[in-house]
Amino acid sequence: MRIAVLAHGKFPDRAKTAVGLLRYGPHEVVAVLDRELAGDGDARVNDYVDDVPDAPIVAGIEDVPEIDAFVVGIAPIGGGFDESWRPDVRGALGRGVEVWSGLHYFLAEDDEFARLAGEHGAEIWDVRRPPEDLTVAEGVARDLDCRIVLTVGTDCSTGKMTTTCELVEAARQAGLDAGFVPTGQTGIMIEGWGIPIDRTISDFTAGAVERMLVERAEEYDHLFVEGQGSIVHPAYSAVTCGILHGAMPDALVLCHAAGRERVHGYESFPVADPGDLASLYKGLAEPIHPTTVAGGALNTSSLDEAGAREALEAYGAAIDAPATDPVRFDAGDLLEGL
Amino acid sequence: MRIAVLAHGKFPDRAKTAVGLLRYGPHEVVAVLDRELAGDGDARVNDYVDDVPDAPIVAGIEDVPEIDAFVVGIAPIGGGFDESWRPDVRGALGRGVEVWSGLHYFLAEDDEFARLAGEHGAEIWDVRRPPEDLTVAEGVARDLDCRIVLTVGTDCSTGKMTTTCELVEAARQAGLDAGFVPTGQTGIMIEGWGIPIDRTISDFTAGAVERMLVERAEEYDHLFVEGQGSIVHPAYSAVTCGILHGAMPDALVLCHAAGRERVHGYESFPVADPGDLASLYKGLAEPIHPTTVAGGALNTSSLDEAGAREALEAYGAAIDAPATDPVRFDAGDLLEGL
Repeated sequence: MRIAVLAHGKFPDRAKTAVGLLRYGPHEVVAVLDRELAGDGDARVNDYVDDVPDAPIVAGIEDVPEIDAFVVGIAPIGGGFDESWRPDVRGALGRGVEVWSGLHYFLAEDDEFARLAGEHGAEIWDVRRPPEDLTVAEGVARDLDCRIVLTVGTDCSTGKMTTTCELVEAARQAGLDAGFVPTGQTGIMIEGWGIPIDRTISDFTAGAVERMLVERAEEYDHLFVEGQGSIVHPAYSAVTCGILHGAMPDALVLCHAAGRERVHGYESFPVADPGDLASLYKGLAEPIHPTTVAGGALNTSSLDEAGAREALEAYGAAIDAPATDPVRFDAGDLLEGL
Repeated sequence: MRIAVLAHGKFPDRAKTAVGLLRYGPHEVVAVLDRELAGDGDARVNDYVDDVPDAPIVAGIEDVPEIDAFVVGIAPIGGGFDESWRPDVRGALGRGVEVWSGLHYFLAEDDEFARLAGEHGAEIWDVRRPPEDLTVAEGVARDLDCRIVLTVGTDCSTGKMTTTCELVEAARQAGLDAGFVPTGQTGIMIEGWGIPIDRTISDFTAGAVERMLVERAEEYDHLFVEGQGSIVHPAYSAVTCGILHGAMPDALVLCHAAGRERVHGYESFPVADPGDLASLYKGLAEPIHPTTVAGGALNTSSLDEAGAREALEAYGAAIDAPATDPVRFDAGDLLEGL
């Protein structure tokens, strides 16, 4: 499919979905919408992110070539809809193409968008809408006939989805029968399947993860589960904890952003020591299904190469496990430990 | 208000809401419905629970005297509606009285009940329906001008709501300005206010707790927050974790059921060691807002008095804090530590 991705004012650093789709998605991104970067019409994705397929950066839907789907590729805290995006969504629906959104605000429940979708035969996929028949976990993930690896983090936005995608690719290259279990909107758009765990009812959070694993375990020998948030996040720890106990992973990969000292968006809280956090994740998993921190993934994009190697060494020592930056270096380095 | 409480087949041991309303509610319970116990019409609540106001146990709505509200007082795992209860609910709505329910299944969305409510001017209060405008936590509970105590547990059904209610009563008797922050359906019915935390979207779970605390901190100096589940529960830990980080408690009371060795309803999982769990709760709270396990509450109802005192001593030693059974003995014993 040919897709265009809206990322107004946030590309690339605060546009996780847009960058994720560029880097890991099976679809061809033919345009990124960012009216602040678009300029005179010659801005390109590769001017800002150099290791993904290139595409033009445009100011609005009127500059987007022919597409099959239009994606809202930003996920602001709270997940609201920014009214300044309305003309772009309206334009996409007017073309009759699919519109995908990962917002908490469901576009299909917006009166105007619902009407336009009906008039033009356009489908709206609100990726963050979970199935309506979720229920409590049965506690069966540990009995599945496959090996389960979960990425966890010291904070939000530390590279859990990226690391999970890189691990799946590396595992497949190594000849393993590896599947990706997405838990967030970007992963779900990449995979075309999945449950948005942060949108599930808290009583059913572990159950939703379990349901995905039960389904995927029939197809794969190795499942890599995308984690969310952090077990000590002031707002999102419920999501993290539900994933940990619903997935009952055999191994964890702890993701951290080099140099991050304050919780993203909650700067009055310090990021906990990665070594302490590794112990906490293990301790929390222990009574349900014992696990280990078998690797660490460090986002070193803020450092030069020498600094990155130094930071990786310190990080590996802190969490007592092999560590790499799976984007800058090689996710394969982690596979052996897993 | 005069209320009747439905508890078919589950009174008293598996009817937490019914017993909670009898013991702590401000309302007069004029009948409990349990068709298995009702017998010839002379069964009484005090035949089964002796330290609460007495009431007749009846087989159905037709034997219930004049009431202001009818309460579904059972909360089965999964929260579904048992069709065998339909005639009772139908009868109550036919009388035009309020119907309160703590089920995940919303009675107001049931076609027949909605129609009957409309016809007879009856109100349906689906206690487990959270407000629609919840959002993510801001991380502010630690800044509130009041002392926050949270009950936590080694499992579900270990007495967290009971302990919280007993602590509030004891604190008020000691002259403290103490408020109750309910998080589950029974507590919400008792208090007539509150958010059902296990029904919130996982991304907003901590935020929902925070919102209640912000509101109640304006009225009280001491807030006692009802906990849910356990931080190592195979299905419900997301709820527990969200409450812990949303509430940012200054002190914890760890609730346990004496002799409980397997997780309630998940018997293939052992109950974790209370001492280990105390450390885990502290470790998990530490990076957000350091706390202590300042007391333990042990449900000793399965033991004789000598056995209870022995079990309390062992439990207090295990968690390194003063312990009591707040129903059998005195919740006041815990207040000093808090």
